[in-house]
Amino acid sequence: MDGYTLTHTTPTRKDFIDTANFDQSEILDIIRLSRTVRSFIKEGGYLNSMYHKSLAMIFEQKSTRTRVSFEVAMLQLGGHALNLAPGAIQLGAHETIQDTARVLGRMCDMIMSRVDRHDSIEQLAKYSEVPVINGMSDRCHPTQGVGDMITIFDHWPAGKHSNQIKVIFVGDATQVCNTLCDMSTKMGMHFVHYGPENHKISDEWLNIGKENAKKYGGSAIWTDDPACLEGADFIYTDVWYGLYDKETPKEEYMKDFYPKYQVNDEMIAATKNPNVKFLHCLPASRNEEVTDSVLDGPHSAAWDEAENRLTAQRGLVLYFDNMGQTTLDYIKEQKEAGGEAQV
Amino acid sequence: MDGYTLTHTTPTRKDFIDTANFDQSEILDIIRLSRTVRSFIKEGGYLNSMYHKSLAMIFEQKSTRTRVSFEVAMLQLGGHALNLAPGAIQLGAHETIQDTARVLGRMCDMIMSRVDRHDSIEQLAKYSEVPVINGMSDRCHPTQGVGDMITIFDHWPAGKHSNQIKVIFVGDATQVCNTLCDMSTKMGMHFVHYGPENHKISDEWLNIGKENAKKYGGSAIWTDDPACLEGADFIYTDVWYGLYDKETPKEEYMKDFYPKYQVNDEMIAATKNPNVKFLHCLPASRNEEVTDSVLDGPHSAAWDEAENRLTAQRGLVLYFDNMGQTTLDYIKEQKEAGGEAQV
Amino acid sequence: MDGYTLTHTTPTRKDFIDTANFDQSEILDIIRLSRTVRSFIKEGGYLNSMYHKSLAMIFEQKSTRTRVSFEVAMLQLGGHALNLAPGAIQLGAHETIQDTARVLGRMCDMIMSRVDRHDSIEQLAKYSEVPVINGMSDRCHPTQGVGDMITIFDHWPAGKHSNQIKVIFVGDATQVCNTLCDMSTKMGMHFVHYGPENHKISDEWLNIGKENAKKYGGSAIWTDDPACLEGADFIYTDVWYGLYDKETPKEEYMKDFYPKYQVNDEMIAATKNPNVKFLHCLPASRNEEVTDSVLDGPHSAAWDEAENRLTAQRGLVLYFDNMGQTTLDYIKEQKEAGGEAQV
Repeated sequence: MDGYTLTHTTPTRKDFIDTANFDQSEILDIIRLSRTVRSFIKEGGYLNSMYHKSLAMIFEQKSTRTRVSFEVAMLQLGGHALNLAPGAIQLGAHETIQDTARVLGRMCDMIMSRVDRHDSIEQLAKYSEVPVINGMSDRCHPTQGVGDMITIFDHWPAGKHSNQIKVIFVGDATQVCNTLCDMSTKMGMHFVHYGPENHKISDEWLNIGKENAKKYGGSAIWTDDPACLEGADFIYTDVWYGLYDKETPKEEYMKDFYPKYQVNDEMIAATKNPNVKFLHCLPASRNEEVTDSVLDGPHSAAWDEAENRLTAQRGLVLYFDNMGQTTLDYIKEQKEAGGEAQV
Repeated sequence: MDGYTLTHTTPTRKDFIDTANFDQSEILDIIRLSRTVRSFIKEGGYLNSMYHKSLAMIFEQKSTRTRVSFEVAMLQLGGHALNLAPGAIQLGAHETIQDTARVLGRMCDMIMSRVDRHDSIEQLAKYSEVPVINGMSDRCHPTQGVGDMITIFDHWPAGKHSNQIKVIFVGDATQVCNTLCDMSTKMGMHFVHYGPENHKISDEWLNIGKENAKKYGGSAIWTDDPACLEGADFIYTDVWYGLYDKETPKEEYMKDFYPKYQVNDEMIAATKNPNVKFLHCLPASRNEEVTDSVLDGPHSAAWDEAENRLTAQRGLVLYFDNMGQTTLDYIKEQKEAGGEAQV
Repeated sequence: MDGYTLTHTTPTRKDFIDTANFDQSEILDIIRLSRTVRSFIKEGGYLNSMYHKSLAMIFEQKSTRTRVSFEVAMLQLGGHALNLAPGAIQLGAHETIQDTARVLGRMCDMIMSRVDRHDSIEQLAKYSEVPVINGMSDRCHPTQGVGDMITIFDHWPAGKHSNQIKVIFVGDATQVCNTLCDMSTKMGMHFVHYGPENHKISDEWLNIGKENAKKYGGSAIWTDDPACLEGADFIYTDVWYGLYDKETPKEEYMKDFYPKYQVNDEMIAATKNPNVKFLHCLPASRNEEVTDSVLDGPHSAAWDEAENRLTAQRGLVLYFDNMGQTTLDYIKEQKEAGGEAQV
């Protein structure tokens, strides 16, 4: 594929709620767009595809990466993101989410929201005239999934076909695990959730992975057998304390996960792959689910992955604003005109 | 009137604190400017009249519409709004409002504030070098009033003169009711506050309406007689719980207002006007002061009204920054040059 | 010196943590840059040296001046500041300051932070790839120091050499006092901390001042003798209640400071200098450490000083983004081309 042509010049859906609603070709479009825009900007190019356009960001929970990455993405595309912080607007207090959606859809060009319950993001999408992006719900974390897949593309194991790549998610089956199961199998990879049975990935998500595997090759399994680690290309983990609004006490989760599911030097060694990469959506509880030695060590791609939140958000905003192909055309034209960055 | 010429090329006052301080011609200027700018932007035009200029927004209370509309307005005019959220700055804690006003007036180009007490907005205006806009106080809600009047102009009853238009505010005499009394009578319309006597509009505001009526035709009355509904062109309502910082308990206000003052299908029918429009400043307490059937039904102009908060804020910012006529001249020039949007 | 040439075209350090780490020539560079940019913007010029660049502002404490001045500075340089308010991100809750620094350094172009403890700003600087600016810690307040020195330059006593200028800080030896001791002596001035012995400036900071005095002339002393006031060119004070997170009760601090160290008309008279200027970093506790008559009177330069927070932040952002000389070259070119402001 060249980096300048999308398969879908228009999104098949108004909203980006769940990666499971999109097929491989559309996810590849978003990844291609994100990576081409990244390289244009890194080389000193300026884009203004979202000139004078606004993204309303609604947070029902605190956020660092999602918030900063979307706000910087809008800036770098010539637009602006409004930070509607937890408790800052009347959502849920004096106004229903539906009415807030209707109003924001009349003033802003796009909405992104991190919600407590997945149903809220679906309501926002239903009642808003403008595209809605899911910035994480208790069901899935689709923007993280796009950033993760970009990071996997960036660190692609040399010479391998996607059907030869093994992605292992270790520990608690969080929303990040769910989305990774969908995204990795949609790319034709082998996905393993390696975790305790009482925290295993749901049958629904495992089946999404299995259906993908039928179409694209690869596989999706859950196991608590450490033998699965051998041959891993990517080891991914997330925190053990669960959702912010109903966190598990430390004694309890340590009993479930520690020490077996901690990503440490021994687990990295057990992959028997000297080029294995470590991923984490962050924030990390250092020396719980991952040791300092791994997170800060030579296998870690977690900081590149954090930067790719920004890479992904630029692509997602452009794609769902229907500015994807236009932006790629502009970049191609600029490159052909000598690669000179133009404001 | 053509849409490109203001009667007042310079505001008569530095600040926009209360619509009652402005005469009809000046309010018409603001409405004209707001509507012309809206149509230019809707047609794809870009404005940068506030290029590199900043609006400090100080909120003593939560806000959705006021905050989002001003922030998007500044973006669409090439500038930026700073969100100084409740508790985010030292106002009222370690610093007096006067000193905060002085400091912000040295750094920003304009101030907008939603305050608990009207005296605070007057103090801000007195001590700040730059224009101050009242984003709602316990006395009035002037920016809402401009957006409301724009919505009434947009939904103008076909063939009627303003002296033939009847605007009814139903329920609790909130700040929104006060400003609507002034604005509708200033336009020569008939204003009715239809509500219980223990929540009736103050004599002060009713007299403002009566004085307007002497100049411009129309009338201003309070009544609790449902016969007033007949012939209404606009039915407007607001929540019943009162000011955020001293909300009335639900049992108490339901006793005062329900069911008589609920805007429902029966009340709409009682107007005997098939073209009557329903307005609400929002947020709405659904099925208290208004039923779903009305708010979401064919008579509702409440969502257009929400969007017109943005329409009004653009006009107000331009007008009080003394950029009104300059901006209209620019738009006229652009239209004459072929209507091509130019960045 | 002309205003268009810096001695250091590149900063000697990545970060601006403490003025004590910089020598006179570098501080003069920052002041020159700040003042030249100010006059260009005041004359109607537009700068976009930070076009599409982002500054992450992390606040562990409330802020008015620091926050607004950096946000407006970024706007006026074509960029954007992200307000990461107290409690808004996961810093300190689910994420260490080091990890937050690493992540923000991958998404943003610069970080500014107001921290509770000085160690935090040093950690941010150590772990972030991008420049970090100290927006106040319990140790010092370097951005205030730059704004203060700009204000002293603006109100320079006519005909005096810096070795003839006396700057007196009255009252509690806050972080602002520490930085002023360094900055004034680094410029060759005479610095006095006039305050009670149990609130006197630390030996460490007094020695920094004395070392400066050896190099540049001037002097640095602490005294509680009111005779020191005679001949003062600048009287500076700050609040008496101490750090926000461990404020002293009012009875206690009044006993220590009042009435002897209140800056009032008598103290101004005691300087025997009709041109003495009053400075205050603000917010002020009116009629505690300073009377209304002084703060609002003819000797007060406190409001100019507040505006110079903005002047300083523009210069600091440009300097530490390595855009100082480029920006001065651009301004010079614009001026030579006829002084026409160009967007």
